[in-house]
Amino acid sequence: MRDAAVLRAWASQHPIALSQALSELDENETVVATELLGDELTADVVTELDPGEAAEVLERLDPADAADVLEEMAPDDAADVAEELDEAESVLGEMAHPEAAELRELMAYPPDTAGGLMTPEFVAVRPTLTIAEAVAEIRRVADEAETVYYVYVTDADRRLVGVLSLRDLLLGRSAQPVTAVMSPDVASVLVTDDQEKVARVFRERRYMALPVVDDQKRMLGIITIDDVSEVVEEETTEDIERLGGSQPLDEPYLRAGVLAIVRKRVVWLLLLFVAEAYTGTVLRYFEDELQAVVALAFFVPLLIGTGGNVGSQTVTTIIRSMGVGDVVWRDLGRVLFKEVRISFLLGAVMAVATLIRAEILGVGVQIGSVVAVSAAFIVLWAGLVAAALPLTLRRLGVDPAVVSAPMITTLVDGTGLFIYFEIARYLLHLR
Amino acid sequence: MRDAAVLRAWASQHPIALSQALSELDENETVVATELLGDELTADVVTELDPGEAAEVLERLDPADAADVLEEMAPDDAADVAEELDEAESVLGEMAHPEAAELRELMAYPPDTAGGLMTPEFVAVRPTLTIAEAVAEIRRVADEAETVYYVYVTDADRRLVGVLSLRDLLLGRSAQPVTAVMSPDVASVLVTDDQEKVARVFRERRYMALPVVDDQKRMLGIITIDDVSEVVEEETTEDIERLGGSQPLDEPYLRAGVLAIVRKRVVWLLLLFVAEAYTGTVLRYFEDELQAVVALAFFVPLLIGTGGNVGSQTVTTIIRSMGVGDVVWRDLGRVLFKEVRISFLLGAVMAVATLIRAEILGVGVQIGSVVAVSAAFIVLWAGLVAAALPLTLRRLGVDPAVVSAPMITTLVDGTGLFIYFEIARYLLHLR
Repeated sequence: MRDAAVLRAWASQHPIALSQALSELDENETVVATELLGDELTADVVTELDPGEAAEVLERLDPADAADVLEEMAPDDAADVAEELDEAESVLGEMAHPEAAELRELMAYPPDTAGGLMTPEFVAVRPTLTIAEAVAEIRRVADEAETVYYVYVTDADRRLVGVLSLRDLLLGRSAQPVTAVMSPDVASVLVTDDQEKVARVFRERRYMALPVVDDQKRMLGIITIDDVSEVVEEETTEDIERLGGSQPLDEPYLRAGVLAIVRKRVVWLLLLFVAEAYTGTVLRYFEDELQAVVALAFFVPLLIGTGGNVGSQTVTTIIRSMGVGDVVWRDLGRVLFKEVRISFLLGAVMAVATLIRAEILGVGVQIGSVVAVSAAFIVLWAGLVAAALPLTLRRLGVDPAVVSAPMITTLVDGTGLFIYFEIARYLLHLR
Repeated sequence: MRDAAVLRAWASQHPIALSQALSELDENETVVATELLGDELTADVVTELDPGEAAEVLERLDPADAADVLEEMAPDDAADVAEELDEAESVLGEMAHPEAAELRELMAYPPDTAGGLMTPEFVAVRPTLTIAEAVAEIRRVADEAETVYYVYVTDADRRLVGVLSLRDLLLGRSAQPVTAVMSPDVASVLVTDDQEKVARVFRERRYMALPVVDDQKRMLGIITIDDVSEVVEEETTEDIERLGGSQPLDEPYLRAGVLAIVRKRVVWLLLLFVAEAYTGTVLRYFEDELQAVVALAFFVPLLIGTGGNVGSQTVTTIIRSMGVGDVVWRDLGRVLFKEVRISFLLGAVMAVATLIRAEILGVGVQIGSVVAVSAAFIVLWAGLVAAALPLTLRRLGVDPAVVSAPMITTLVDGTGLFIYFEIARYLLHLR
């Protein structure tokens, strides 16, 4: 019994740490641990896990016990977990009827829409009530609602007509009608809205929760800001993984299987390989020049590497600026003008650096000039490609997130080599 | 007058759009626009801008008018803007005395600490009050406080002893003492805590606001979740820019000056250049082999490019996983074991792809085998370096954010060439 008390105190104070520990237990240990915790604390702890991990924990329990835990969870979280269960039906079958029906309804919405994020537990009152009556109503239902930040005012058809903050209720006079203190101009999202749109509305309006309505403006649920933070974090992770040149993983790295990761990476690796293979064609095309001046080969990785680095710096900044909404299509001119000046200066610096490097390698002043001039042009070219491509693709309706640093590097490699050898041919009078 | 009404309606419904428009006005237009809006709406609109942009808007006004706007802003936002003003003292001199003193105090905290994020406007009540008395007290001060999500309970020495939600107050009985409904176990952050720590506490505990205390547990202010979302967005942008191989910009891309961006990029470009210069040394070391089999040069960009791509994919995933706390040092073994298997499979695929490419280029089966075997080893090597380096650096106390995709690419370029030519020498019996 002392174990149980310690465990329960720990669960309520460090749910995240405990959730990690719980997910690593075996079947017997899980059964014992969840018995000690009780359904409510188990629900709190399981909520902290990713839905996939949470489902794995629940699958170690009897369907009836798993159902008890799901019933204690917030319906939006429970629905996410239920979707990941291998035998969701046998667990849902053990749940009380109204709860199971609610979960089935939530599971029907795509997880990346407002419907998939919302919880149906919110507090709504009729516009005919006084503040005192509204407070009495809230007292009655407060236990069921996940979080009471706002009280919504809905008419007889469940249409959203206003919103009250708890502060309005606390500071208003008891006999006033709620319509006197409510704010009628209430922001909402459509149940079919994409989660990115939901995140944008939260960023623009600083609310703690947003109501979700159908196309008749009937209120279906609420989305709270903590659910949206998770969405933003996931979407940012996907953007970063794409920027690094893979398709995004659907789950945390440590949980993802080796084959799943390989599949996400190999697609882009092969596409980039095909694009990069063009460098071999360019080099073979200049085979005579290479044979004549083998020292030209010494600078191949350095020049295309530097071009790739400039491209990576630029594309990363542009993609992120587009991601947070700082840069849009109509900024293309400004962005290009800026990058021309930046790349011009960077090109000058890198040309000097290359000249010094050529001197150290002792390849002579002629080859030194060739590589220095090439460095300047390649840097300029890399900066412009990296700045223009993401904006142009968005304009063409292609998600600019497909533009990765490796893609820019690859584009710059082949074209950079071409620039290099054309300059060499011209300055060294090779043909 | 009709203009004013339209503008004011627009300002309250679309503050972000209007803030952008306001920042682009000239001096006279700004004076007219802010007069039409009035101090309070101007404050709302200016709050939506970055502090630097907001300061530029206020600098177009008389110090006295700018002071009026600052007084209407939330103190934490006003302090951020005042720090960016060129002539902050002349504006602060025009403000009412207590407001100016409050701003000066907030400006003394470093902007990236809890002190720099907090607002001193919060609601606190004494533990000796009843719920009815507490509600009366809140009514009295509610206008001043930025947001009332929680009511804090502090003792005679201003020490934090508990927290009440508005829900506790609304649902409790009037005659109960606040200590009966308050939660005594209240999470807080130290005024000197770094903003990253603050963000972490918000992520772990799902609060809408956190109290900020000094080392005596005396309450100084609160941080609300919307201020922290901005911090998380900024820090993520910095991580992404570092991952792309630049030092992070201190301001949004379009606002940053050309020279400032050049400075941020050129540092890493030159460092990477020096590291990449090593590739020239490797190639010169293998000059005889290159001279003998010039076709080996055809595959140099393809092989090191593929290695760089694998490195970029891996390091991006690992750095992001570390950033959100999914991967920590003790996972090094698991990560390496995973990456060995992933890279082994990717290496096999890329070896086949390289073999096909060599066949198409018509370089013969011998060179084909050399490049295929090299591709496999380089991919394996790139995956391992990219997985191990960030974790090892964190272990050594170095911020793993310095590890960028270009850094991994550069490391893999020189070492990859070495692998390639050693394999060529061995398989082609070149010495």
